[in-house]
Amino acid sequence: MRRLLRSSLPHLAAGRASYNDSSRVRRHLLSRIYQPGNLWKENSPELQAKPNDPSSKSQRLMYKAGLIRPSSPGCFHYLPHAVRSMEKLVRIIDGVMQDIGGQKIDMATLCSAALWRQSGRWDLVGKELLCLLDRHEQEYCLGPTHEESVTSLVATEGGISYKQLPLLLYQVTRKFRDEKRPCFGLLRGREFYMKDMYTFDISEEAAHQTYNHVCEAYAAIFRTLGLRHVKVQADTGNIGGKMSHEFHLPAAIGEDRLLLCRSCDFAANVETLPPDQKTCPCCNGKLEESKGIEIGHSFYLGTKYSHIFNAVCHSDHNKPLVAEMGCYGIGVSRLLAASIEVLSTEEDIHWPSLIAPYQVCLIPPKKGSKEMGAAALAEDLHDSVCAVPHLGNEVLVDDRDHLTIGKRVREAHMMGYPYVIVIGKKALERPPLFEVRNHRTGQVQFLSKEGVLGLVRDIRVI
Amino acid sequence: MRRLLRSSLPHLAAGRASYNDSSRVRRHLLSRIYQPGNLWKENSPELQAKPNDPSSKSQRLMYKAGLIRPSSPGCFHYLPHAVRSMEKLVRIIDGVMQDIGGQKIDMATLCSAALWRQSGRWDLVGKELLCLLDRHEQEYCLGPTHEESVTSLVATEGGISYKQLPLLLYQVTRKFRDEKRPCFGLLRGREFYMKDMYTFDISEEAAHQTYNHVCEAYAAIFRTLGLRHVKVQADTGNIGGKMSHEFHLPAAIGEDRLLLCRSCDFAANVETLPPDQKTCPCCNGKLEESKGIEIGHSFYLGTKYSHIFNAVCHSDHNKPLVAEMGCYGIGVSRLLAASIEVLSTEEDIHWPSLIAPYQVCLIPPKKGSKEMGAAALAEDLHDSVCAVPHLGNEVLVDDRDHLTIGKRVREAHMMGYPYVIVIGKKALERPPLFEVRNHRTGQVQFLSKEGVLGLVRDIRVI
Repeated sequence: MRRLLRSSLPHLAAGRASYNDSSRVRRHLLSRIYQPGNLWKENSPELQAKPNDPSSKSQRLMYKAGLIRPSSPGCFHYLPHAVRSMEKLVRIIDGVMQDIGGQKIDMATLCSAALWRQSGRWDLVGKELLCLLDRHEQEYCLGPTHEESVTSLVATEGGISYKQLPLLLYQVTRKFRDEKRPCFGLLRGREFYMKDMYTFDISEEAAHQTYNHVCEAYAAIFRTLGLRHVKVQADTGNIGGKMSHEFHLPAAIGEDRLLLCRSCDFAANVETLPPDQKTCPCCNGKLEESKGIEIGHSFYLGTKYSHIFNAVCHSDHNKPLVAEMGCYGIGVSRLLAASIEVLSTEEDIHWPSLIAPYQVCLIPPKKGSKEMGAAALAEDLHDSVCAVPHLGNEVLVDDRDHLTIGKRVREAHMMGYPYVIVIGKKALERPPLFEVRNHRTGQVQFLSKEGVLGLVRDIRVI
Repeated sequence: MRRLLRSSLPHLAAGRASYNDSSRVRRHLLSRIYQPGNLWKENSPELQAKPNDPSSKSQRLMYKAGLIRPSSPGCFHYLPHAVRSMEKLVRIIDGVMQDIGGQKIDMATLCSAALWRQSGRWDLVGKELLCLLDRHEQEYCLGPTHEESVTSLVATEGGISYKQLPLLLYQVTRKFRDEKRPCFGLLRGREFYMKDMYTFDISEEAAHQTYNHVCEAYAAIFRTLGLRHVKVQADTGNIGGKMSHEFHLPAAIGEDRLLLCRSCDFAANVETLPPDQKTCPCCNGKLEESKGIEIGHSFYLGTKYSHIFNAVCHSDHNKPLVAEMGCYGIGVSRLLAASIEVLSTEEDIHWPSLIAPYQVCLIPPKKGSKEMGAAALAEDLHDSVCAVPHLGNEVLVDDRDHLTIGKRVREAHMMGYPYVIVIGKKALERPPLFEVRNHRTGQVQFLSKEGVLGLVRDIRVI
């Protein structure tokens, strides 16, 4: 058991302390949560897309559920449920990145123009850069990616020892890109969270191994989320380098056109093929077109940046060799929206279950109804479910008991909580039974308290 | 036990799975960590303060220990150890904020000039704002604080129901301030992490209660970190409002002058008193001057912002009342540096122990030495300490076994790990004894394996 800091940190004990001390349980009551959904009117003009403003299912659902709010074009405020979900997503990504040896760093947002001029990207990226002058008239951009920063950081230290190779540095930070036409909510924003990793190797061969390693880790992340993805060969764009792949979630709303071979595993972004290419360049099989939302991108950079900034690796003979680099991005906030886009129905959010804001939504009886006789059972069930250690912080109670059970159940499914537990009529039976609704499968079961506890113990959390 | 995701998430199982499966343990080896300290030359010119560039003990130590690296004036890259420490600090703050009902949100960095003009702060804050134009010539600033954003967010939703009061929204995000003279590393940066909370109440009385509540929570955070702090009455500056307090860590390098009464608990920033005030305005007691590093600031705003943006609370009679607001900041990256500043010696970092990057540094024998006979014991001890569940991710092995134990011990103390465990000569005795060094107290004990495990089980982690 993790040690509790009872004296100085009573709040920390909440989710972990013995449940006998009920004052330590931090209850999550829906009526207390700043979820403007509670107040929001369906036709609120601010939240309707304007005629020329393309909208997407995920954007509509994320507005409706009170996950995000627009602040300015392509910029959003994340409300409490979205923050919980994003934090879970980041924990998954951290775990996978660190498992392959990734080390988390955090680089400055303000990137000096001098660095970006040195790489030639100041002009190349051009209008997509958000630039500013400080009070001393020094020029900066808000980093959309950090190849220049990380390469110069490593170079300044005098290079990397062979003992530290491969070196994998990554961060999860807010990035900026002045999109001409931001749209689809978090799918194409101007301010967004990106996980960007930069790798350093001593030879092309080693760099290729690292490249494959990171690509496999990306696949593991998407698998963990239960998302079917496609990896396609891609253009290197303004990042540059020798080889590149994109990771897509197939979706009608996707802005990229992909060609997938029916006969082998060839897959490409249409940009990388001649316009008249109709058959697979590997096996001559038929190519099928699909659309995708890009959620990840990998680049084998070679020495493009390391050469410019003189970032070297020291061999075991202390011979400095220009580093072979790779860079790898996952659009974290985009992945959140994209997974909602591909998993949800028009009415209901479906999350990758690990990153749902809460795993369980508990709905006690309506005030004044017959079922109110089971109110004490509802309390007891809540406390017992929260006492399952990994669920202490995962149970939301929809305590708006002026609303009918039916209305609250509908809303809980719209919000996409993986399990909805209703304390309804059958809770008055002997033994009392509780209605457990599995949001993904649609299955509805009536279970005893022990049955409920048996089921929720198997819920996976991150 | 938290459920493990063995099949799809093997990496996650690492710190938590049964230790018998040793392939699941993620070892933290110092030689693999990107800690430029390993390579860094003491006199590297880039890291020496320039003659006119004021430096501080914490800045020197943070450079030396490879925690941060300068990127541009007042902007820093955080390296892996610093990221671990910052994440722990944020977890402590999250816990305390959520314990008083705080809800975590995440607001956009880009703040539209229109909002800031509406509050009058666009011109008031002036040169301290970092401003930019986007491709459509729209003006933005990079938010240094978010009173405008949060008030307008709440107002746009139509106001707050009495059921949700008091409403406490907070975030931990990167903020920007174009300091004229950034200095002292993270103590006065241009890009920094701030925890900012905004509170909404329906009456002045309720807002005062909330104000006291949040101030007490701040005190709890500093107590948890083991930091002695002083709360003083303060100027409201460009934030405005009716009442304000600062939270300081007393330190010679502090840029604020504080006056503390010897006889009662009156304490003030000197800015708030007439220049000739020599005695306490409460009890006429003698005032003593001290210097402090500001780590937190609270403001009772009244209706300054809510009036401008029309953010209202709805009473239980559905009567809209202009919200009474408060705002509260903790400089998170500054708190990290300030705590190092006040706790450390000139040579050695001392962390608030909960936020040390690793709790335990384990030093196995030097290769080729007599003690190498105990190498297997070192492995076994490492595995046993990591098997203590809350320590699975907290043990760093200084595997640079070409270095003497003495050199590695000195470096471990410079890095400030709370416990340093040496597998030295006495590990060859029967029963084997291990040297356990408590960095804070300086105590050195020789303990059996069981003794070591008994001791480390009591280490508190976050």
